[in-house]
Amino acid sequence: MLTLYYAPGTIALASHIALEEAGAEYTAMRLNFAEQDQKKPDYLAINPKARVPSLVTERGILTETPAILIYICQTYPAAALAPLDDPFELARLQSFNSYLCSTVHVAHAHLRRGTRWADDPAAIENMKSMVPKNVAECFHLMEDEMFAGPFVMGEHCTVADFYLFTIARWLEGDNVDIATLPKIQAHRQRMAERPSVVKVLAEQLA
Amino acid sequence: MLTLYYAPGTIALASHIALEEAGAEYTAMRLNFAEQDQKKPDYLAINPKARVPSLVTERGILTETPAILIYICQTYPAAALAPLDDPFELARLQSFNSYLCSTVHVAHAHLRRGTRWADDPAAIENMKSMVPKNVAECFHLMEDEMFAGPFVMGEHCTVADFYLFTIARWLEGDNVDIATLPKIQAHRQRMAERPSVVKVLAEQLA
Repeated sequence: MLTLYYAPGTIALASHIALEEAGAEYTAMRLNFAEQDQKKPDYLAINPKARVPSLVTERGILTETPAILIYICQTYPAAALAPLDDPFELARLQSFNSYLCSTVHVAHAHLRRGTRWADDPAAIENMKSMVPKNVAECFHLMEDEMFAGPFVMGEHCTVADFYLFTIARWLEGDNVDIATLPKIQAHRQRMAERPSVVKVLAEQLA
Repeated sequence: MLTLYYAPGTIALASHIALEEAGAEYTAMRLNFAEQDQKKPDYLAINPKARVPSLVTERGILTETPAILIYICQTYPAAALAPLDDPFELARLQSFNSYLCSTVHVAHAHLRRGTRWADDPAAIENMKSMVPKNVAECFHLMEDEMFAGPFVMGEHCTVADFYLFTIARWLEGDNVDIATLPKIQAHRQRMAERPSVVKVLAEQLA
């Protein structure tokens, strides 16, 4: 039995969808970020980084979305959520996931998490002002150079699709016009209609 | 035959060491960042992100350090550079690599790459001023919570060690006192003495 710690609206959605698509037995535990649950001692004992997601397994606790996603793929291979038998294709998927975590998510994070990197209110405002341009650049690069279609990797839905979908849901908040990204827009719509996504979002937003 | 594109002083060192330790046949191609080689059309055709590393393989081009590192592990399994047969242990390694790419490297990047996220010179200076504290926090978390010892994952050297070593070489530039991080300090010294690391650094700095 697995336990996923998440908060609504966060990157933990990607791992939550992956667990559902994998057919895993799991419990989803919600943290309330408004009450700073992630900084309370009980949770810091699970994840000293005070972030989500955390996945509690029988062997120990895993953190970081790219690691959790591949772990789910390997633990539930029948779900075929990654090209596990092809090192080059798996590396392509991991490259996409790495770009999301190290560049796209970081570009987005400067909107509301600016205090991670600056403490002058004017600096934080300056960073916020650049988020629409920076996030748009990332998404246009993905649209033009990295997105095979109809899914990220091509014909097959993989965990990269859950990860992209999760971050693409933030585009309106980042003030990026998704209509300028037709492939990403169609992908987001298609993903939103998957039964796993409908179920997970209903649970997270209940 | 593989071709690695790198620039001295960058994160590409981790992949370069991994290729050497794997016993791979490869060519290392140096870019001169001072001359903006990474933004020239020839290189943008290889990597439109204008970053290093890029690994050219017979099947296509791979980017992003965490993806390249696992690809090298899977392509040269005899070198035993990752726990490939154990999904949980592999996820632990990937979690460490993800933390390096999405948090530690990003904390460091606010020192010299601030223009990625701000355009006001005062904001860029404010971000710079927080780098020593932010990088130190990341390294203390790794020292206290994540580093098994004597290597990152425990008894066996893995690609996570090459990745950590690469970023730990930046500590003096980030104005973090490595003497306050005894495990990281001993690890860096031990890694610097490995024949593969000596050879690769000699080539990169020649």
